[in-house]
Amino acid sequence: MEYDVFSPDCPSRQAFDQIFSRWGILTLARLTAEPVRFGHLFRSVGGISEKMLAQTLKVLEEEGLVHRKEWDEKPLRVEYNLTDAGQRVAQSVSGVIQQLYGELERRRA
Amino acid sequence: MEYDVFSPDCPSRQAFDQIFSRWGILTLARLTAEPVRFGHLFRSVGGISEKMLAQTLKVLEEEGLVHRKEWDEKPLRVEYNLTDAGQRVAQSVSGVIQQLYGELERRRA
Repeated sequence: MEYDVFSPDCPSRQAFDQIFSRWGILTLARLTAEPVRFGHLFRSVGGISEKMLAQTLKVLEEEGLVHRKEWDEKPLRVEYNLTDAGQRVAQSVSGVIQQLYGELERRRA
Repeated sequence: MEYDVFSPDCPSRQAFDQIFSRWGILTLARLTAEPVRFGHLFRSVGGISEKMLAQTLKVLEEEGLVHRKEWDEKPLRVEYNLTDAGQRVAQSVSGVIQQLYGELERRRA
């Protein structure tokens, strides 16, 4: 079966919902190929809670877009970065954000 | 003030939330430059309710992405199409959907 984004029964709908949400989009746009620490992400995605960030990162990891690395250190050090697939999606997502904001600013001008 | 997508206090946050939602994205991706009737959209965005579609279209119209045309007919005929700005955003949005689904399918293969 091919995925069909418009079908409510498609198994892709769950991933779609979680990625195309405020926090999915903003978190993706903040991640890079370079590993970043949880705390850094938390501070840079304005308004997100630690719980929601952890949940969002878990979904992105499950979908193969994010890689999580944990060091055996105290205090625990956890870093996240985009996988190759994640980089491609994040680039498109950033493009849409820029596009949308360009249109909103043009309209306001 | 410049819009800042990552700031919870930015006035753009509301539009962002409404557009980057399941129904905002799917509705945008289904609209075209050609006017389409409400009923057609309703049937082609799987799982949406009439109320949610009306609400989504209202937001997209307020943000200047969608044009609503009402004919003085009985029964009432209402059609929607993308504005120029809407076409540009919808094109980027469709690009991201394709990108994301390409990655999900590749992973499943």
